Amino acid sequence: MTETCPSEFLTFAHELADRAAEISRAYFRAAYEVERKGDLSPVTIADRSAEEALRGLVAERYPDHGVVGEEFGPHQADAEFVWVFDPIDGTRAFVSGNPQFGNLISLSRGGRPLLGVIGMPAQQERWLGAAGHGTYHRDAAGERPVRCRPCPRLDLAVFRAQLLPLTEPEPMARLRPLVADTLLSGDCFSYCQLASGWLDLVVESGLYSFDYMALVPVVEGAGGAIFDFAGTDLDLRSDGRVIAVGDPVLRDQVLRALAE
Amino acid sequence: MTETCPSEFLTFAHELADRAAEISRAYFRAAYEVERKGDLSPVTIADRSAEEALRGLVAERYPDHGVVGEEFGPHQADAEFVWVFDPIDGTRAFVSGNPQFGNLISLSRGGRPLLGVIGMPAQQERWLGAAGHGTYHRDAAGERPVRCRPCPRLDLAVFRAQLLPLTEPEPMARLRPLVADTLLSGDCFSYCQLASGWLDLVVESGLYSFDYMALVPVVEGAGGAIFDFAGTDLDLRSDGRVIAVGDPVLRDQVLRALAE
Repeated sequence: MTETCPSEFLTFAHELADRAAEISRAYFRAAYEVERKGDLSPVTIADRSAEEALRGLVAERYPDHGVVGEEFGPHQADAEFVWVFDPIDGTRAFVSGNPQFGNLISLSRGGRPLLGVIGMPAQQERWLGAAGHGTYHRDAAGERPVRCRPCPRLDLAVFRAQLLPLTEPEPMARLRPLVADTLLSGDCFSYCQLASGWLDLVVESGLYSFDYMALVPVVEGAGGAIFDFAGTDLDLRSDGRVIAVGDPVLRDQVLRALAE
Repeated sequence: MTETCPSEFLTFAHELADRAAEISRAYFRAAYEVERKGDLSPVTIADRSAEEALRGLVAERYPDHGVVGEEFGPHQADAEFVWVFDPIDGTRAFVSGNPQFGNLISLSRGGRPLLGVIGMPAQQERWLGAAGHGTYHRDAAGERPVRCRPCPRLDLAVFRAQLLPLTEPEPMARLRPLVADTLLSGDCFSYCQLASGWLDLVVESGLYSFDYMALVPVVEGAGGAIFDFAGTDLDLRSDGRVIAVGDPVLRDQVLRALAE
């Protein structure tokens, strides 16, 4: 990250996150219909209402900005600034009354992520990272900067993965015996844990841009590193394979283990 | 469940759950040392402090009752009434800053569970079930009875399992294509979701009595059924294989699928 995110976007991102939180909390554990998409993943009125509300706020405030979201088609996706939304990440958790779902909001410039919010509305907390500002954790007790924890060696790392055992069983099988402990679940909250220094490594694949764009500034702002399986920085066109390490010295050890 | 749990035990169980919640919240996301047990599962001062506090409260109030807990040896385990504690279920979640851990408290009489509490202190909510009283969900907004939802056929069921893919890969592989959707994670919160009608089936194996005893009254009090892989009711001596169905009509369909 070479440039600093203008402060006005941080304020606006909090407004977007407040609105997404309000809408998802209103539907959480309430009665509504669950539809299944082509891949059988669930979608609800909460996903659609939250994304519509966020799109409306962007159109009003920054009409020249683009928007890419999970539930509706792209709008001005080749604009300089593009907002990327996953209104409810972890819809399976959401529809089963599990508070572990998130609102993902990011702003990219020229395809590179500049700001990311991982909102955990049912947990009453939020992580926001922005280029040049670091990463902050906000909850009822206030807001404080967070940092990833040191982890000099892969065999000391606590590793979390949800999709990887299904999407990439061989890399998963190679990685697992090399780490200290493995947690098999996840969604976006794993990257909050990494940014706060509560775990060391997250590897996933099969993600879409709306799943991973918000993660990048949160992880990088906390001193971690996030890249694809080739070690390349993530942007809007990455292939959906994501490695996040809290301690950047783990980068080469993880890439080597996955490539073997 | 043929007998009604005396009301004084419900009041006392809430006192125990309040104390366990207070201690686990005090340590959650704080700095403390994590030890690894023989099976590499983590244990902390929070587990031990909570269990000690609960044992102290029982000794003071019901000195003739027995106690079985995860962290310390059994005490009068052949008494008529035995309290069974897992002070922190989901210690891996706890030590990684994840609110999805629970305090499990149960009372059994003659080995059969009479009352169970699944406390989710970091989520600020609790489920309590007791023979003859039903199951209640308590949070900041108050307390209300909960019921499992109807699910007449296995192919409509939302299924959650965490340990099963590792401990019993073949039954897991047989079950998975027969259900509507599978969530691969869990700990004790899965049974809260079942009792509240947010999912339909949980199957696990490799559980200890302190993991499953509290689940029984919560599930049964909400109209669900919980039994081992032979279809037998659970007690202190069960083998740690657990099937919980929200709609009891699923019982035979699940047993048949696992036996095939």
